[in-house]
Amino acid sequence: MVKSLLEEVMTVSLRRGILYPSAEIYGGLAGFYDFGPIGTRIRNHLVNLWRTRFVENRDFVYEVSGNTLLPSPVFKASGHLNHFTDPSAECSKGHVTRVDTLIEERLKIPAEGKTDKELEAIIQEHKLRCPVCGDPLKEVKSFGLMFGTNVGGERRQAFLRPETAQNIFLGFKRVQTAMRAKLPFGVAQIGRSYRNEISPRQGIVRVREFGQMEIEYFINPDQLNDCPLFEDLAQVSLNFVTREAQEKAMKKSSTDYASIQLTVHEAIKKKVVPNQWMACILGDEVEFFKHLGIPEKAIRFRHMRPEETPHYSGGNFDLEIHLSFGWKEVIGNAYRRDHDLQSHMKGSQKDLSLDIEGKKVVPHVIEPSFGIDRLIYAILEHTYRPKDDTRGWTWFQIPNTLAPYHAVILPLLNRPELEEKASTLFSVCKQQGLAVIYDASGRIGRRYARADEIGIPKAVTIDPQSLEDETATIRDRDTGNQTRHLISQIPIILKP
Amino acid sequence: MVKSLLEEVMTVSLRRGILYPSAEIYGGLAGFYDFGPIGTRIRNHLVNLWRTRFVENRDFVYEVSGNTLLPSPVFKASGHLNHFTDPSAECSKGHVTRVDTLIEERLKIPAEGKTDKELEAIIQEHKLRCPVCGDPLKEVKSFGLMFGTNVGGERRQAFLRPETAQNIFLGFKRVQTAMRAKLPFGVAQIGRSYRNEISPRQGIVRVREFGQMEIEYFINPDQLNDCPLFEDLAQVSLNFVTREAQEKAMKKSSTDYASIQLTVHEAIKKKVVPNQWMACILGDEVEFFKHLGIPEKAIRFRHMRPEETPHYSGGNFDLEIHLSFGWKEVIGNAYRRDHDLQSHMKGSQKDLSLDIEGKKVVPHVIEPSFGIDRLIYAILEHTYRPKDDTRGWTWFQIPNTLAPYHAVILPLLNRPELEEKASTLFSVCKQQGLAVIYDASGRIGRRYARADEIGIPKAVTIDPQSLEDETATIRDRDTGNQTRHLISQIPIILKP
Repeated sequence: MVKSLLEEVMTVSLRRGILYPSAEIYGGLAGFYDFGPIGTRIRNHLVNLWRTRFVENRDFVYEVSGNTLLPSPVFKASGHLNHFTDPSAECSKGHVTRVDTLIEERLKIPAEGKTDKELEAIIQEHKLRCPVCGDPLKEVKSFGLMFGTNVGGERRQAFLRPETAQNIFLGFKRVQTAMRAKLPFGVAQIGRSYRNEISPRQGIVRVREFGQMEIEYFINPDQLNDCPLFEDLAQVSLNFVTREAQEKAMKKSSTDYASIQLTVHEAIKKKVVPNQWMACILGDEVEFFKHLGIPEKAIRFRHMRPEETPHYSGGNFDLEIHLSFGWKEVIGNAYRRDHDLQSHMKGSQKDLSLDIEGKKVVPHVIEPSFGIDRLIYAILEHTYRPKDDTRGWTWFQIPNTLAPYHAVILPLLNRPELEEKASTLFSVCKQQGLAVIYDASGRIGRRYARADEIGIPKAVTIDPQSLEDETATIRDRDTGNQTRHLISQIPIILKP
Repeated sequence: MVKSLLEEVMTVSLRRGILYPSAEIYGGLAGFYDFGPIGTRIRNHLVNLWRTRFVENRDFVYEVSGNTLLPSPVFKASGHLNHFTDPSAECSKGHVTRVDTLIEERLKIPAEGKTDKELEAIIQEHKLRCPVCGDPLKEVKSFGLMFGTNVGGERRQAFLRPETAQNIFLGFKRVQTAMRAKLPFGVAQIGRSYRNEISPRQGIVRVREFGQMEIEYFINPDQLNDCPLFEDLAQVSLNFVTREAQEKAMKKSSTDYASIQLTVHEAIKKKVVPNQWMACILGDEVEFFKHLGIPEKAIRFRHMRPEETPHYSGGNFDLEIHLSFGWKEVIGNAYRRDHDLQSHMKGSQKDLSLDIEGKKVVPHVIEPSFGIDRLIYAILEHTYRPKDDTRGWTWFQIPNTLAPYHAVILPLLNRPELEEKASTLFSVCKQQGLAVIYDASGRIGRRYARADEIGIPKAVTIDPQSLEDETATIRDRDTGNQTRHLISQIPIILKP
C-alpha cells in the first residue's frame, strides 16, 4: 500500500522522536501530540528564530507570558462563549459530528457562514448520515469549542484560552504604562492555546492543544499607513489570492484559486490590503519564511471572504501553505480594528483608551497569529526527501538554523585511538556552544543515514588519516560531498 | 503603614511590568499572575540558564515538550485522581476553606498526614470557624486539586496536569527507543502545570497555574551510586535539615530547625541521602543557584518527614529558600523508585521495562522539580534593595545573566548631536546581539533610577565630552561608580 506524504512524515516523526501522540500508552486522545527530543529541539529553534526577528530586533515590541486559564467574564466579553462554536449533529448512538466539514467534503458545497437551520436542511436533502456508524443525524446544534472548568473553593467558571491574544488585551494598559510605550507598539506572546474540536484529524495540523506565537500591534487609527517597517519591506514580493479570484473560481465550483504577485508597495497602492501596516506584516512573514525551508511558491496570502471573517474585521489575510492535502492556514493575519479593546472596555467597565494630545484614542489592532505545530508540520513536509537511487534512506533537508543539531561526530572505526580523538573533538565542539551528538555504533553508512533522517546538516568523521595529519572529513547532508579539514578548524566551520 | 517585603516587591513588580494579576481588569482570580515584558525577559533568561546547564551541557538529558491536558486514565493510574487532594470544609454560607493550613496557622499544630476525621476532631475541639465569615465549619472532605474538563464530540474526561512529569513517564519508551538511550538518562520538560488550590495566597508563591522545569532521571536500580556527575560535584557543600533535627525542634513545638553543612561526598558517606545520584542532583542545584543572586545561607535541603512523603518515596529533599515569610519549597527532589513506571505499566497494560543483558529492568526515578514562579519571586525578594541614604530609589541587584537588559543607553542632554551618537551606539549594541534599551526622557538621575528599578546592570551615558573624544561613561548599577571608555569598546565591555 502506498503511504501518503502525511503518513510518511508521521511515520519517521514517530520513529525518530520528533513527535508522538500524548498518552499513547493509554490509546491517546485525538488531536493531542507531544514533541519528543528531536521535535522539541526543532520547536525551540523555531521559537527562538521567531523571537529574535519579531521581538528582540524590534524596539517597539514587548513579550509577555500569561496564563492559559482565564475567568469566564473574559470570554463573555470577547464573544467566544457565544460565538466560538462549530455546527454539530449527534446520531442516535451518541456520535457527535461536525457538519460543516462533513457537507463540504461529501457534497463539495461551501458551508462556511450558513446557519444551523440551513445546514440541517442540506443534511436532510442529501440524506447525510453519521460518518462513524451510518445512523441518521439529529438536529444541528452549536458545539462550544472552549474547554471549561471550575476554580477553587470559590467554584468560579474558567476556560482555557482559545488564543493567546486575550491575555494581551487584558494586560494592555499594564504593559503600556509600565513600558511607557507610545503608539504604535506590539505585544507578543508565545504559549499554548486550546480548542475543543469535535473530531480532529490530519496529525498535528488540526489539534486541540497547540502552540501559538502571536503579536498584537496597537496602532493609532490615524496612522495605519505609517508603519516603521515599510522602508525595509516595501520591495518584498507577496503572493495574493484576492476575494475576486475566489469568487471567480467558486462560480466554476472550483477551489483552484488564481493568485497574483505584488510587492508590499504595490499591494498598498492597489488597495489589495486595507493599510500599509497589514502589507508590512505580510512582507515581514515572507522574509521570515525564507529561513524555514518552505519554497516561496508554496506560500500565499488569501484574503478571507466576508462569510469567513467576523463582522468587525477590517480584512483578514491567512498565510496558507501548500501541503500534500491542500492549502492550509498556518498564520492568521487579522485587522481587528478596535473590537477587542472596545469589548473589554464594555465588559470590564475599565477605560483602556490612551490620552493622545488630549484626545481619547482606542488603538486599532492588527494581529499575526502563528500556529507552531502546523508550521513545524509544514516544515517537515516541505523538507522531507524520500529514498532515491543515490540515497537509500529518507531525510529532512531542514535549514541549519532549525536543525536539531549542528553536527554528528563519528569515529570511522571501532578503534580506541579514533574514538578518543572523536570524543575530544566532540567535547571541544560542545565547549564552543555547538549542539553536537556522538555516534559510534554501526556501519558508517548507517550512521550517516541516522543523522540525515533527523536533518543534521553535517557529519564529521575521524578516520585513520586523522591520526597522521590532524584532519577530519565533513560530510554535507544536502550534497553528500565530503571535504577534509584541520580538526582545529572544524568547530569554526560548523558554527552557524 | 509599613509594607511587608512581599508587598514592596509586588508593588514594584506591578508598577514596572514584571508581573500582574491575570484578567486584572475583571478583578482577576486568586492565584493567577501573568508576566509582563520585564518579568518575561527575566523568566526567559532563567529558563535558558536552566536549559543550558541541565539539558544542553548534558549528553544524557533529552528535552520533551508535551500537552498539559491529558486523559483521565493517566491520572487514575498515577494516583492523582484519588490522592491529590487537600482537606477542606465548607461553612453554611458556602465558603470552602483548606483546613490543614487553617489548623497549622491558628493552632500551631502540625496537620500533615492527619486523616479527615482527625482534622475534624481538632476543628470541633478548638471551635475553629470559617475564616471568611465566622460561621461554623461543616464536615471535612477531600477537595480534588485537579482541573477537569471534557474533550470533543467523544466527551472524554481529561485533566490539566498537576506536574509536567506525567508526560515524561507516558513517553518514556518512545524517547528511550528514538534516542537509543541507555541508562542512566534524563528527560526534561519545561512547561505549565495546574493545581486547583482551594484558596491560594502569598502572591506568586502559591499559584494555581505555574511554570515548572522538571527532569526525570531514569537510573538502573543497581547503579544508584554511580552518577556521572559525582566527580565534578563531590566537594560541593550542602546545607541539610535532617529528619532528626526536625523531630528535635518539634518536640519543643518549634519549627526553627538546625541544619548541618556537608559536602556531596560526606552526605553520601554519612547516609544523609539515599544514594549518590540524589546527592549529586542536590549539589548540581547548589551550583546552579550560584548564578541566581540568592545567598547560599538562604538555601537548605530539608529531608521531608515520613508523613509528608508518599509511601513509595525513597527519600524526598525539598530545596527551601528563606523568604521574608519563612522557608518555602522552591524545588522538590524526589527519589520515586519505580513507582511511576510501575503504575503506568499496570494502568496501561504496556511493558515499560528495558531489556538489560537479558534481564527486565524497570528504572528507578529521581526527580528534581523546579517551580519557575516561586523561583522568580525568591530571586526578586533576595535581590531587592530598598531606598537608603545613598540611593533614593529601590532597585534589584539581579545577576547580569538574569537581568532584563544588558544596558540602557542614555544621551545626557536633550541635544540632537548627543541623541544621534547615543542612537548610533544603541544600534551597534543591538547588532552585536546585546539587549539594550534607549531612554532619553527626563533628568539623568531619574533615568538611572528607572534602570536600577528593573535591575539593568549598566547605564551608558553619552555626554558633551563624547563629542570631543569618542568616549562615554558606564555607570555600574551595584556601586554607582562611573568609568569612561572609548565608545567603540563599549559593546565589547557590555558583553556578558
